[in-house]
Amino acid sequence: MFMFEKPLGMRDTLPSLYEAKKELRTSMSSVMESWGYQFIETPTLEFYETVGNVSSILDQQLFKLLDQQGHTLVLRPDVTSPIARVAASKLYQEGCPLRLAYSANVFRAQQREGGRPAEFEQIGIEFIGDKTISADAEVISLLIETLKKAGLSKFTVPIGHIGYVNALFLEIVGNEERANVLRRFLYDKNYVGYREHVNSLQLSSIDKQRLLSLLQLRGDISKIGQAKELIEGEVGRKAIDELEQLWHRLQAMGVTDNIKIDFNLVSHMSYYTGILFEVYAENIGYLLGNGGRYDTLLGKFERHAPATGFGIRLDHLIEALKIPEKEISIHSVIFSTEQSEEAIDFAKVKREKGEKVILQDINGIADVDKYVRACKEVTFFIGNTRRVAK
Amino acid sequence: MFMFEKPLGMRDTLPSLYEAKKELRTSMSSVMESWGYQFIETPTLEFYETVGNVSSILDQQLFKLLDQQGHTLVLRPDVTSPIARVAASKLYQEGCPLRLAYSANVFRAQQREGGRPAEFEQIGIEFIGDKTISADAEVISLLIETLKKAGLSKFTVPIGHIGYVNALFLEIVGNEERANVLRRFLYDKNYVGYREHVNSLQLSSIDKQRLLSLLQLRGDISKIGQAKELIEGEVGRKAIDELEQLWHRLQAMGVTDNIKIDFNLVSHMSYYTGILFEVYAENIGYLLGNGGRYDTLLGKFERHAPATGFGIRLDHLIEALKIPEKEISIHSVIFSTEQSEEAIDFAKVKREKGEKVILQDINGIADVDKYVRACKEVTFFIGNTRRVAK
Repeated sequence: MFMFEKPLGMRDTLPSLYEAKKELRTSMSSVMESWGYQFIETPTLEFYETVGNVSSILDQQLFKLLDQQGHTLVLRPDVTSPIARVAASKLYQEGCPLRLAYSANVFRAQQREGGRPAEFEQIGIEFIGDKTISADAEVISLLIETLKKAGLSKFTVPIGHIGYVNALFLEIVGNEERANVLRRFLYDKNYVGYREHVNSLQLSSIDKQRLLSLLQLRGDISKIGQAKELIEGEVGRKAIDELEQLWHRLQAMGVTDNIKIDFNLVSHMSYYTGILFEVYAENIGYLLGNGGRYDTLLGKFERHAPATGFGIRLDHLIEALKIPEKEISIHSVIFSTEQSEEAIDFAKVKREKGEKVILQDINGIADVDKYVRACKEVTFFIGNTRRVAK
Repeated sequence: MFMFEKPLGMRDTLPSLYEAKKELRTSMSSVMESWGYQFIETPTLEFYETVGNVSSILDQQLFKLLDQQGHTLVLRPDVTSPIARVAASKLYQEGCPLRLAYSANVFRAQQREGGRPAEFEQIGIEFIGDKTISADAEVISLLIETLKKAGLSKFTVPIGHIGYVNALFLEIVGNEERANVLRRFLYDKNYVGYREHVNSLQLSSIDKQRLLSLLQLRGDISKIGQAKELIEGEVGRKAIDELEQLWHRLQAMGVTDNIKIDFNLVSHMSYYTGILFEVYAENIGYLLGNGGRYDTLLGKFERHAPATGFGIRLDHLIEALKIPEKEISIHSVIFSTEQSEEAIDFAKVKREKGEKVILQDINGIADVDKYVRACKEVTFFIGNTRRVAK
């Protein structure tokens, strides 16, 4: 029956899930706010030429439409690029770091029915105008504290540095085009394909070994030392130094338990410019969130400023938390016309105490037995008696 | 500069307005929840054929797009019709009244730049499956209590009955087409045009007088008596009876101070089927919210059930409340690398007490004087001294 259908990937959020989302959003926001982040909201629709173009989301995943003036609009595909637009035009003052937060739905068109949502909520922060490692450390430790506050205990945050990957590839394969092929394998986390491709390249066996050794650079802090051995140039060294400094900061903040070093991390083909990270919960297969440094995005809005941030997918987090269906406790007061005033007074007192109370005219219920069966707690005000049913 | 623009009617919500909206939403939701209403969320995109068609919003105001399968989609133009879709297909159980609530953005395409938002938040409730006057009374008293809880003191809720207007017009002008012309004038609140039109009609002077007298039927409860004198048929009488019963219910609930009787109310050309109402604040010219009985909407989803509800526009309410720009109080802790651990500990203690604290590396600030000028409260951890600046 077409009448009852929703577009591909669209979902209704029924009361118990709604409550779970609201609770999570509230507890996560409170951490972000306590760190001095301020929430903002951007519109659902943006100009394709403004936000659609600079977004990290693939063009084919954008929902596009024409407005009545003939401009192409997109449904917000991510929140970072609209926030960059607002920050660049209004909020960011040269030289003064800016901390912003958001919780908003984003839209990704789906090609076919595959259980993937086309609209889902992201909650996250953007820290604009601060180029220091302290900023990277703040964003990662806030991510970890936010997830802990949400109730998640078992999760891992692999941290990498796109500057290292880029420098190593350029040193060995010599140009961006060939580097891009290698990056794509890492982006897809296709390590088998990466190996095969490396073996097929016209390179010295030493260089092949260096490229293959990159795959070993995932694990604890000792990987930093191994990474140093693979690279020669200044750029790659600088990336390692940054990662090392970051580690020490995170250690001082006491959040390294959840952290892994991962020099294979390529979360996007071109978006990130420095330290970057992802988050995985132990019990689900897909990404819970990610983030990193994107120092070139604001420049696309003609305002050059370094920036870093993260976003968490609320739907995936709820799945990882295995939040049980929540029964909302509501007391039903069923009254007849004669007793309506007594019922109203009774409900009023209970509501003022914070109880949730339905006041239901018995004449409005066609099937009283069925209605009462669905109630947790019922009080009747009928005839001239008050009667508590269950 | 095109890069910084937003589509027509789209707005950014900056932190102080964001906080004001959040506070209002929270206090209003808590009233709705205490009356046993459960919040749900529907998708931003719906099928045009499903929800777009049955919505009360004009076709030219819909944002439409094609999905990748070639279906026409609309951005949610109102919340009542998506909720009717969900209720009809999943939530509503025959004979058992259902109470749902929502806060969601709705979309109305604007023809030209005129300061009107094309996306705005509505907060409201739908009470499905109860045909009694108790249901109408509940919805109106909940509207009033919700607005009072939001802090609004001076507002008026005119209440009418579309059944009375329809019956009177049909009695006098004889067919729906001619009745429609009259209804349109009331819908537009064009009383001058209504008078002129009535005077131009081929009717007895008595009938003209009856139509003109309708315009007097706005005011206190005494208008009920006058309304009885104008009408002859059963249908119109029944409408008056319902309104009279409603008044007594509202009196018992102690909410009649904000209520006016208004037999001229036509909030929509075809949507409402019985008692209907609007809300106006004393200090702003436009509608704050409206609602009423819509007993035929669920039938369009092949599930016949009576229903009533209301929606409040959050942007208009904020304007009516004249909420002052809210300064968010944040303490800035500026540290140098040497003192970072002391600064972290200091911030941690304050955050745990519920304070909002920014931890800012001094190396991340290009212009420290400017930064400090913008802060309300600053503590420095630099060199080996801790210093409170203001």
